Amino acid sequence: MDRRTPPQTEEGWYVLHDFRSIDWDAWRDAPERRRSQAIEEGVEYLASAERLEDAEAGDSATFSVLGHKADLLILHLRPTLADLDSLERQFEHTALAEFTERADSYLSVTEVSGYMSQEYFEDDAEVEDAGLERYIESRLEPEIPDADFCSFYPMDKRRGPDHNWYELPFDERADYLSNHGEIGKGYAGRVTQIISGSIGLDDFEWGVTLFGDDPTDVKELLYEMRFDPSSSRFAEFGRFFSARRFPPANLAAYLAG
Amino acid sequence: MDRRTPPQTEEGWYVLHDFRSIDWDAWRDAPERRRSQAIEEGVEYLASAERLEDAEAGDSATFSVLGHKADLLILHLRPTLADLDSLERQFEHTALAEFTERADSYLSVTEVSGYMSQEYFEDDAEVEDAGLERYIESRLEPEIPDADFCSFYPMDKRRGPDHNWYELPFDERADYLSNHGEIGKGYAGRVTQIISGSIGLDDFEWGVTLFGDDPTDVKELLYEMRFDPSSSRFAEFGRFFSARRFPPANLAAYLAG
Amino acid sequence: MDRRTPPQTEEGWYVLHDFRSIDWDAWRDAPERRRSQAIEEGVEYLASAERLEDAEAGDSATFSVLGHKADLLILHLRPTLADLDSLERQFEHTALAEFTERADSYLSVTEVSGYMSQEYFEDDAEVEDAGLERYIESRLEPEIPDADFCSFYPMDKRRGPDHNWYELPFDERADYLSNHGEIGKGYAGRVTQIISGSIGLDDFEWGVTLFGDDPTDVKELLYEMRFDPSSSRFAEFGRFFSARRFPPANLAAYLAG
Amino acid sequence: MDRRTPPQTEEGWYVLHDFRSIDWDAWRDAPERRRSQAIEEGVEYLASAERLEDAEAGDSATFSVLGHKADLLILHLRPTLADLDSLERQFEHTALAEFTERADSYLSVTEVSGYMSQEYFEDDAEVEDAGLERYIESRLEPEIPDADFCSFYPMDKRRGPDHNWYELPFDERADYLSNHGEIGKGYAGRVTQIISGSIGLDDFEWGVTLFGDDPTDVKELLYEMRFDPSSSRFAEFGRFFSARRFPPANLAAYLAG
Amino acid sequence: MDRRTPPQTEEGWYVLHDFRSIDWDAWRDAPERRRSQAIEEGVEYLASAERLEDAEAGDSATFSVLGHKADLLILHLRPTLADLDSLERQFEHTALAEFTERADSYLSVTEVSGYMSQEYFEDDAEVEDAGLERYIESRLEPEIPDADFCSFYPMDKRRGPDHNWYELPFDERADYLSNHGEIGKGYAGRVTQIISGSIGLDDFEWGVTLFGDDPTDVKELLYEMRFDPSSSRFAEFGRFFSARRFPPANLAAYLAG
Repeated sequence: MDRRTPPQTEEGWYVLHDFRSIDWDAWRDAPERRRSQAIEEGVEYLASAERLEDAEAGDSATFSVLGHKADLLILHLRPTLADLDSLERQFEHTALAEFTERADSYLSVTEVSGYMSQEYFEDDAEVEDAGLERYIESRLEPEIPDADFCSFYPMDKRRGPDHNWYELPFDERADYLSNHGEIGKGYAGRVTQIISGSIGLDDFEWGVTLFGDDPTDVKELLYEMRFDPSSSRFAEFGRFFSARRFPPANLAAYLAG
Repeated sequence: MDRRTPPQTEEGWYVLHDFRSIDWDAWRDAPERRRSQAIEEGVEYLASAERLEDAEAGDSATFSVLGHKADLLILHLRPTLADLDSLERQFEHTALAEFTERADSYLSVTEVSGYMSQEYFEDDAEVEDAGLERYIESRLEPEIPDADFCSFYPMDKRRGPDHNWYELPFDERADYLSNHGEIGKGYAGRVTQIISGSIGLDDFEWGVTLFGDDPTDVKELLYEMRFDPSSSRFAEFGRFFSARRFPPANLAAYLAG
Repeated sequence: MDRRTPPQTEEGWYVLHDFRSIDWDAWRDAPERRRSQAIEEGVEYLASAERLEDAEAGDSATFSVLGHKADLLILHLRPTLADLDSLERQFEHTALAEFTERADSYLSVTEVSGYMSQEYFEDDAEVEDAGLERYIESRLEPEIPDADFCSFYPMDKRRGPDHNWYELPFDERADYLSNHGEIGKGYAGRVTQIISGSIGLDDFEWGVTLFGDDPTDVKELLYEMRFDPSSSRFAEFGRFFSARRFPPANLAAYLAG
Repeated sequence: MDRRTPPQTEEGWYVLHDFRSIDWDAWRDAPERRRSQAIEEGVEYLASAERLEDAEAGDSATFSVLGHKADLLILHLRPTLADLDSLERQFEHTALAEFTERADSYLSVTEVSGYMSQEYFEDDAEVEDAGLERYIESRLEPEIPDADFCSFYPMDKRRGPDHNWYELPFDERADYLSNHGEIGKGYAGRVTQIISGSIGLDDFEWGVTLFGDDPTDVKELLYEMRFDPSSSRFAEFGRFFSARRFPPANLAAYLAG
Repeated sequence: MDRRTPPQTEEGWYVLHDFRSIDWDAWRDAPERRRSQAIEEGVEYLASAERLEDAEAGDSATFSVLGHKADLLILHLRPTLADLDSLERQFEHTALAEFTERADSYLSVTEVSGYMSQEYFEDDAEVEDAGLERYIESRLEPEIPDADFCSFYPMDKRRGPDHNWYELPFDERADYLSNHGEIGKGYAGRVTQIISGSIGLDDFEWGVTLFGDDPTDVKELLYEMRFDPSSSRFAEFGRFFSARRFPPANLAAYLAG
């Protein structure tokens, strides 16, 4: 068999999903002074990251994670891997870190691909379509939506003997993804997504982060997508994380229960 | 292949299965005063949740889990994810939490789907069938049955090359589920179930919680279902948890062995 | 496809395989007084369980587990799940528990099924065959054999696209199991088994506990069975535990190395 | 399908691969006196096991394991499971054990099978072939080769719908294994193997322990075998452990880095 | 089926990927004196390894790992397994080790195979092609490239019923790999790789370590390769680790965040 044509891609910001568990026993036992310091330094770290004091571009947000898998999700988008590496380690030097353990993480980078717009890649000339350009920029350098709920999961495309995404012709893959994308449009204004690539960066091929005020909108979108051949035939999912956003200033309230 | 028609769904209460292990070594070593306080605050948390003092609707129950996977299952149903997020963190602030560790959890939301009643979804008019309406309400806002035994497991429908639930026509899926549901009717009065959806919320697609006074009724029901094509051909199961309900007031007796 | 006929089943005693690891570091460091107390309370718990002081029926036994998976297997059979729940928690209140951690467990219930004797189930009349009745009683309320070696593993029957146990006609399943059972008869007097069902109770469908004085008899029996289509085509195995029985009175010698 | 003929087997010594991790933090922190005692008791345990002071037959050896999976492999072969059970627990009573944790283990028993020599099993008469007899004895009661490098892994034969070892006719299996064995002969003098069966004893069906002075000889042998249908079509491998032998007397040097 | 012809291989240096997590809580709490000592001994160990003070040949490098899987990757290439065994244990005797835990590791050995150059293996005469000789030497005794980014993952070739690498004729495998290698040439100067074999040494068959200044070059290379039949049809991947190189002298800055 011949090698299939890969899509061209362009990468934007690197993305770190940093999942942390709170050591609630330590928190309950800590004297008021240390708790105050942890909150102060935690708020400073989170707010500083959201204000982008460490870099010239990017975005950050803080979430409360439901269930036992983690308690906090700190989401960072930055122009370089060095930025993320630094942010990850700087957290460890806050007094808040003493009350957390790393529960999971995911490393990826925002991307646009030739599936979406071959013209964008094929044409050396500048993109004349201002709307397309803005759209592409919004995918490469996305603002984290201001929504209450967030769902994250990593995913692969199947490479099985029966259904092998990587052995489909380019056009067939582009069709699958175009149809798949149509579903999302029906949820415009209710669900926003950040798709980031992770081949060579982490264990799956993509990270999917969905945002919406109503969790059932996200559930319905994903349920509808599961019936789309792009998912039903080719998707392999990792673990799912459900989280609720809160502003850094609410850290004390979050930790108080 | 064309995209298959997803069922319409309506969601009700969010569901958190909160599994905790007791740190028996710490419990044995704790001075009487701290044990009393843990019991007092534990009973207060559990009873308050069962009395719905934190929300306007929902239900909660407490169970003793058999085996090494966990010791306690605290089951909460509430109208919003914020309610569950809050309940989960409030537990950590009780003196009882000091003697527990999170062993597992599952996040889902009650749902009814168009497989059960297409009329309910297709008709803009109000449901005229009062019986159907009551049934749907009992699925969206279920009362936790007052039964001794509870079995919980998460599950997926298969998306394999041979048997792919998500590539079946709608009517075929509805038939499978209708036949599957018939089995349950034979156990009416002996086994009650809460089915909750978790696509985009947790690692599987559904959570199944079965209640009955006699565990062998649950076993027989699930054994019979395993021979039904809806299960034999399409079901993938996660871990199974077996638990016995106890009233919060019995927490001291539970901890005393 | 039509739903296949499930076998009727009758359940007997609930079974808990309680695997514990010894914290040898803590044991070595403990003062003689605490070790004596741990041995005393441990012997009392184990001997009391074997003497059935907690229930009107059942059986219990203690084993030393080979390898790193666990050190102790405490096996309990009791008429109710409440009995097992209580036994499991009572152990935690002995001074011995301080030196152990839960390594694994398995919950199941003894069963006889219509594969073995359809007459037993189909006929409302009393079983007239006294031999059959005694045999069925020995399966539902088995005495733990007094043998040196014990091997435990949980198992499922396959539900794959090629070989799906749950889509076979009843008679074919009964034939498979009848032939499979023949193998065991060749080991009568050397290997005894307790088969217990765990659908809805734990992660697999059955638990298999084999007893014999010579471990190579168990190995040969299972090797022979592996070539039988019932296993070669349909069996999925969990982890295997090998253990050697010892009387509670020998706990001190066991802990002394 | 009919049941396939299992090979007859004869078992020899039981084999315990006891993998331990060193708690290097505790080791660095320990006062010289406790380190001396740990070394003294460790050397005594290991040397005593190698000198067979605990049993009338068998063999033992000590290895340094590469990588994070473990630090020590203590390999014991003994005539009875009771011998291994005792050796495993006796180690826990040395001062060295305080600085180790169990990382993994594998339980098996040496075996010869009818694939190798049907005559040996079929003929009631004594084996007249003195060479065969010595060979069989060397497999049932093997001496641990005095080689620098050791590679251990457990393995299964596949029972898939396409390739099912346990549904092949006896002669076909014997041919596969005979051809497979030919490969090993090309490495005579460079690689020696101990094959031990573990059906009913541990999670896989066999343990394979290979010995050689040059690790690349072992790598080449296994690479060559991987192209042999017996492996390419039927082998499922567990984890691989690489280790280097050292004499008990060198324990101090080993712990000193 | 006949046994397929394995490629001849020649092995060079052994490779240890030693992944460590920093215990940040302990680091924050440590007095300045112990931190200084840890940095001093850590720098000395890492710099000494990079200067090859422990061996006559090889290479070493230090990396910061992104995400929760690990914090440090210490990469060693050495002529013998004894060298790696010693380096691994010597690290444990530094004051830095007190603040680290082993998170993962991978053991392999550099190799060239007959797929690349049959002449090299088939011809007893010396290789006359000086370019080929230099190339082979660069694969057997590679210098770790001086690049900012490093991606590591282990991999297997599939042995499934549909696509079985080990049942392909030699020439077909050589063609697959030749085409696969062509992709890499398009990234010359941007991405450098070290391929090392691990059959019999560790859990997968190969380790792949990619180096480049721009992580998106590595991502693009691997994405393009994923469409090549050698990957799309035959590759099974383990976990992926992303890391950034830093000189040992920067250890203090690294630990300071």
